[in-house]
Amino acid sequence: MRGLVLEQGLCLQENRPKPWGRPQEAIIQVLQAGICSTDLHLVKGYMDFQGVLGHEFVGVVDQAPNQSSLVGKRVVGEINAACRACQTCLQGRPTHCPNRTTLGIMGRDGAFADYLSLPIENLYPVPEGISNDQAVFIEPLAAACEIPQLVTIKPKDRVIIIGDGKLGLLCAQVLALLGCHVTLLGRHHENHAWLAQKGIAVTLELQDIPPGADIIVEATGSPQGLTMAANLVRPRGTIVLKSTYHGEVLVNMTQLVIHEISVIGSRCGPFAPALRLLANRKIDVEPMIHARFPLNEGIQAMEQASQPGTLKVFLTMS
Amino acid sequence: MRGLVLEQGLCLQENRPKPWGRPQEAIIQVLQAGICSTDLHLVKGYMDFQGVLGHEFVGVVDQAPNQSSLVGKRVVGEINAACRACQTCLQGRPTHCPNRTTLGIMGRDGAFADYLSLPIENLYPVPEGISNDQAVFIEPLAAACEIPQLVTIKPKDRVIIIGDGKLGLLCAQVLALLGCHVTLLGRHHENHAWLAQKGIAVTLELQDIPPGADIIVEATGSPQGLTMAANLVRPRGTIVLKSTYHGEVLVNMTQLVIHEISVIGSRCGPFAPALRLLANRKIDVEPMIHARFPLNEGIQAMEQASQPGTLKVFLTMS
Repeated sequence: MRGLVLEQGLCLQENRPKPWGRPQEAIIQVLQAGICSTDLHLVKGYMDFQGVLGHEFVGVVDQAPNQSSLVGKRVVGEINAACRACQTCLQGRPTHCPNRTTLGIMGRDGAFADYLSLPIENLYPVPEGISNDQAVFIEPLAAACEIPQLVTIKPKDRVIIIGDGKLGLLCAQVLALLGCHVTLLGRHHENHAWLAQKGIAVTLELQDIPPGADIIVEATGSPQGLTMAANLVRPRGTIVLKSTYHGEVLVNMTQLVIHEISVIGSRCGPFAPALRLLANRKIDVEPMIHARFPLNEGIQAMEQASQPGTLKVFLTMS
Repeated sequence: MRGLVLEQGLCLQENRPKPWGRPQEAIIQVLQAGICSTDLHLVKGYMDFQGVLGHEFVGVVDQAPNQSSLVGKRVVGEINAACRACQTCLQGRPTHCPNRTTLGIMGRDGAFADYLSLPIENLYPVPEGISNDQAVFIEPLAAACEIPQLVTIKPKDRVIIIGDGKLGLLCAQVLALLGCHVTLLGRHHENHAWLAQKGIAVTLELQDIPPGADIIVEATGSPQGLTMAANLVRPRGTIVLKSTYHGEVLVNMTQLVIHEISVIGSRCGPFAPALRLLANRKIDVEPMIHARFPLNEGIQAMEQASQPGTLKVFLTMS
C-alpha cells in the first residue's frame, strides 16, 4: 500500500507493508485524512517519530476480527491505543497509558496511507449526516470539547482564545455554545467574518481586549501566547494550555502564584460529544478547509499546510 | 515607636512615627511576630518594598474607631487591605484588589514594630485556648488551608509535599487531616520525627517516592521543586504552587500539556479555618519554633532566620 512516511526525511512509499493482523484491531481503509500542526512538528523532530504520519482521518472498516458487523462501516478513531491492563488504564485514564501507542505520533503507523490499524474499541461509527470533510475534524474537535470537561465554564464568563489556527477556531465555536462571551485573538482576523454569526468577536489587537478575563485558552503554539494569557487572565482565573512548545520555555511562575491562577494542560478529548455537535450542525468546519491533495502529492500537501495562514489541508486516498 | 525597617538596608529605628489615624482602621499593639521567608526575600529586593517588615503577628487592639468593644482584645489580622469598592473587590476577590496594600509587603508598614494599623474588618479575635506562639502561625496556616479550598482532595489521594520549610510542614499537617496519604520530601527529615504520629511519612530521598501522586504541593522556593513536582505527579494530577521564584524560570510546559496536568498558583488563605484547627489542637506548631529574639535584636533575628534548616524565628516586642 502507499504511505507518507517520516524516516530520515519525508517520502511517499508505494510498497509499504499493510498493517495486517494485530489481535483485537480493525483494519480501516482510509478515505480522507487531515494534516495537523503536530504533523509539521513531527517532521521537525518532535517525539522522534518514525513511520507513517497522520492521525486525523475518516475511513471504512475493511476487517474487524469477531466484529463482522463493523465491516463496511464508516468510522473515525480515538488515536491512543492503550494496554487496558496497567494501573493508569484501570484508573480510567487510558489516554495516558504508559504503554500506549498513538496513531501517527508514537509507535504506530498513521493515517496518511491506504490502510491503518486501530483497536476496535477505539472506533466510532460516523452518522450519515456527517460528511467525510466534517468527520476528519472529529479528532481536533474532541480536543476542543475537552476544555469544558476540565474547567467549569459559566454562561457569564468572559473567555479569550489566543490563536486563530484550526484548534483555536474549533475551541472558540465549542465554548461560544455555552453562552459565554468569547473573543478570538488572532493574526488572520479578516478571514474569520463567518464567526460573527456565532457571536464570536475576532480581533487582531491586544489593546482591544480588556484584561481580567475568566478563562484564557492558549492555542498559538508559541510561548508568547502564554505570556499574553497570563496578562489577560483575572486573579484566580484559568489558563487552558492547548499548545506544546519546543523544549523548555521561560515563564513567570511567581505571577501565577501572586494572582492565584490555574494553568491546565489539555491534549486529547472525547469523541462522542464531538460527533454529537457535528451531527447537530453546531460546528462549522467548511471555512477552515483550505486545500485538498491526493495522497500521491502528500509532500506538496505538507508544504502547503506549513504556509502561514493556511488552515486545514486534506489528503484524499482514492 | 520602634520598628525594624527596610530602606537602603535593614535597620532598627527607635523613633518611627506611629501609624495613627487611618479611617476605619484599628491600631494594634504587637505582642509577638514571626519571620517568614518572604521577609528574607524582601530584604533581597523582592517587591521593591520599603518600610517596616513583618506580616505574621499577634497583638492587642489599642484603638478601634467606632468599635470600642474590640479594644483590649487579642487579635490576628488578614494582611491584605483592600479598597472594597473596585470590581475585583465587588466580585468577591478582595485579596486581589489592585488598590490593595499588604502588611509589611506592599505599601503598608508591617508587624516588626511596637504598633501596626489594619482595617478593622481584617481582624480576627484569638480564642483563649490559642497561645501567642500558636497565633503567630495563623497567617501561614491559613495559606495551607487554601489548598483544599482550591483543589478537591479525596481521602484515597496520594499527596506529596515538596519542601520541609515552615509552609511545607503546615501544608503536610493540614492535608493529612483529610485522610489522604501524605509524604513530605525535604532536606531536614531527621528533625521531623514528630510528624510520624500524624501519619506523615518524611523522606530525603526522591527514589523512595513512587511517582504517580495525585497531588503535589511545591513549597521549596526553588524552581527545581517545580521540575520534581512535574516528574512526581500522575497524568491529570494537580501541582499546587506555593513557591514564588525570583524572575522567570525555565519550565517544560509541553510535559504539562501531554500529561494534562493542572498547575494552581496559591498565595494567601482563609483565617477562620486556621483558627478553628489551632483551637481544636489539630496542628502542632511548637516543634517549628527555633529561636526568639527581642525586637531590639531584630537584625540578628533575621540573620538567624536566614540560616539553612532554621524554621520559625520569633520577635517579641515587650
